[in-house]
Amino acid sequence: MTVNDRLLRALRRQSVDRTPVWFMRQAGRYLPEYRDVRGDRDILEVCREPELAVEITLQPLRRMPLDAAIVFSDIMQPLAAIGVGVRIEAGTGPVVDEPIRAAADLERLRPLEPDVDEPYLLETIRLARKELSVPLIGFAGAPFTLATYLVDGGPSRDHVRTKALMHEDPAAWRSLMERLASIVRAHLDAQIEAGAQVVQLFDSWVGTLDPLDYDRDVAPFVRRILEDLAVPSIHFGVGTAHLLREMRDAGGDAIGIDWRMPLDLAWEAFGTDRAIQGNLDPAVCTGSWPAAERKALQVLERAAMRDGHVFNLGHGVLPETPVENLQRLVDLVHERTER
Amino acid sequence: MTVNDRLLRALRRQSVDRTPVWFMRQAGRYLPEYRDVRGDRDILEVCREPELAVEITLQPLRRMPLDAAIVFSDIMQPLAAIGVGVRIEAGTGPVVDEPIRAAADLERLRPLEPDVDEPYLLETIRLARKELSVPLIGFAGAPFTLATYLVDGGPSRDHVRTKALMHEDPAAWRSLMERLASIVRAHLDAQIEAGAQVVQLFDSWVGTLDPLDYDRDVAPFVRRILEDLAVPSIHFGVGTAHLLREMRDAGGDAIGIDWRMPLDLAWEAFGTDRAIQGNLDPAVCTGSWPAAERKALQVLERAAMRDGHVFNLGHGVLPETPVENLQRLVDLVHERTER
Repeated sequence: MTVNDRLLRALRRQSVDRTPVWFMRQAGRYLPEYRDVRGDRDILEVCREPELAVEITLQPLRRMPLDAAIVFSDIMQPLAAIGVGVRIEAGTGPVVDEPIRAAADLERLRPLEPDVDEPYLLETIRLARKELSVPLIGFAGAPFTLATYLVDGGPSRDHVRTKALMHEDPAAWRSLMERLASIVRAHLDAQIEAGAQVVQLFDSWVGTLDPLDYDRDVAPFVRRILEDLAVPSIHFGVGTAHLLREMRDAGGDAIGIDWRMPLDLAWEAFGTDRAIQGNLDPAVCTGSWPAAERKALQVLERAAMRDGHVFNLGHGVLPETPVENLQRLVDLVHERTER
Repeated sequence: MTVNDRLLRALRRQSVDRTPVWFMRQAGRYLPEYRDVRGDRDILEVCREPELAVEITLQPLRRMPLDAAIVFSDIMQPLAAIGVGVRIEAGTGPVVDEPIRAAADLERLRPLEPDVDEPYLLETIRLARKELSVPLIGFAGAPFTLATYLVDGGPSRDHVRTKALMHEDPAAWRSLMERLASIVRAHLDAQIEAGAQVVQLFDSWVGTLDPLDYDRDVAPFVRRILEDLAVPSIHFGVGTAHLLREMRDAGGDAIGIDWRMPLDLAWEAFGTDRAIQGNLDPAVCTGSWPAAERKALQVLERAAMRDGHVFNLGHGVLPETPVENLQRLVDLVHERTER
């Protein structure tokens, strides 16, 4: 019973009454009610309890009239589901117990059977759908971004080991990417079947690659994931000003960009035959409302109410963000983009 | 007695017999003889001993026929010299004891008097020049990049506090940038007077800004630094594919780019009336030679032996880099670019 279809229309570049708005990590630590529900537990643990995950998914919607919900999960969750030892350390990110360093380690990445391996996620989606009048977004990490955690063992600035595997052992790299692509595709297809009406692929760290390596070593696997999905998709990365055409060619009904590049320039670069998602700097949302408002208005000005814009931040909501800023932001976007 | 003037010629976009090559952080932890000289001491301490600093400056030149030396120092050194409490933590980076958070804190950034505050640096430059037959590069951190350490207190991914100051208190921000620009300009002028034949301005983290904020809140201060310098300058940043024209407009005889964007595309974006420096991924240099060679040849192919190319990595040499890889790289560049 999806009443508000702004997001779906924008992803198809159809006209909308107001620009749709949602926030990456809108269900997260900036919300006191999230911190209450989660307590000290690892995100991956909470994901395994559908009632809690549904509650967290719905929390931001009770605070503000967002145009989409995103299922509460984590990009590492399908890997945990097939037995990869990983925990999400607060303030750090995913830490992998035994990083993948060579071809022999790849055995550990067996195929994902969503019904068996992650029934809690699918249950979360089914339950959340019953409560929602806006579209529900499912998501996954893209193979390269998952690889940076699997191979480097955790968050890293230079992704040295990941790139080393890519450059030094192309066969192992392809096998890693193939396995991850299969896992991710199965993961997304299952979310769609359970009720996700849109999916977002987070290739958050792919901006560290040059276009030549991206085209050869990453794009083919992204393409397999985004090709012929049953619902519209958003293809997101951080620091991708130099990769926009390549990411577009790899797929996605919308390209999600960070705050670095003005929307109109990015849109011109990859072509207005795709929707665009973004791109307010999450850092500016941590301060006073006037500063956030000023930058938000710049984003809206660049989007110029063109069909096919989904308003979002340029990356996830930061934990120190005042809830009020996001509430005012949703209202601002809706007020200023009324057609 | 500079015999090898390839770097100077390339920065003026004059013809060269071979493309000049040097490496950011060529004097550093990847060299066992550097680790021996430095021991456990903070970089800033070592900088204050000209004989050690000269020795470290010369070390990479004894290993390979580089076309330039860069004085051993640190971007935080002039700030330490005026009394800012800062240490360079191994594996982390600069950590500032009392970060700058408000206008009142700015008092601590008094003007730099190079002869009084950093005589050791100038002595290092004078002594090193006597030993060198290649140009000596002086350098400084740019105001924004220095601010990320001063305001956020250390390395940070999102630079939240720095951006907050910029957006929330424009007067304090301008005062901070003005003070830093004066310090940096005095620092560079003194290095030039002492004998530096080229200077590089490291605006390493400016790529986190969008072009609108960069133009308003950063570019004017960079311009004051790079305008009318007595020697050629290189203006460097990481992840700046979306800022290339703006950085060019702010100044620099050469624009230094990281590994993300192919040289020819970057060059076209900011115009071939400037030289370009870059751009092999330092991560690829940590592995086997064939992988590094393959990527180095891609860089050379994109540069196409056009006048005005200075070969370098896209960021500093990583500590785990085998010395042999850099040695072979220097030879490769020289061999493959013989005119």
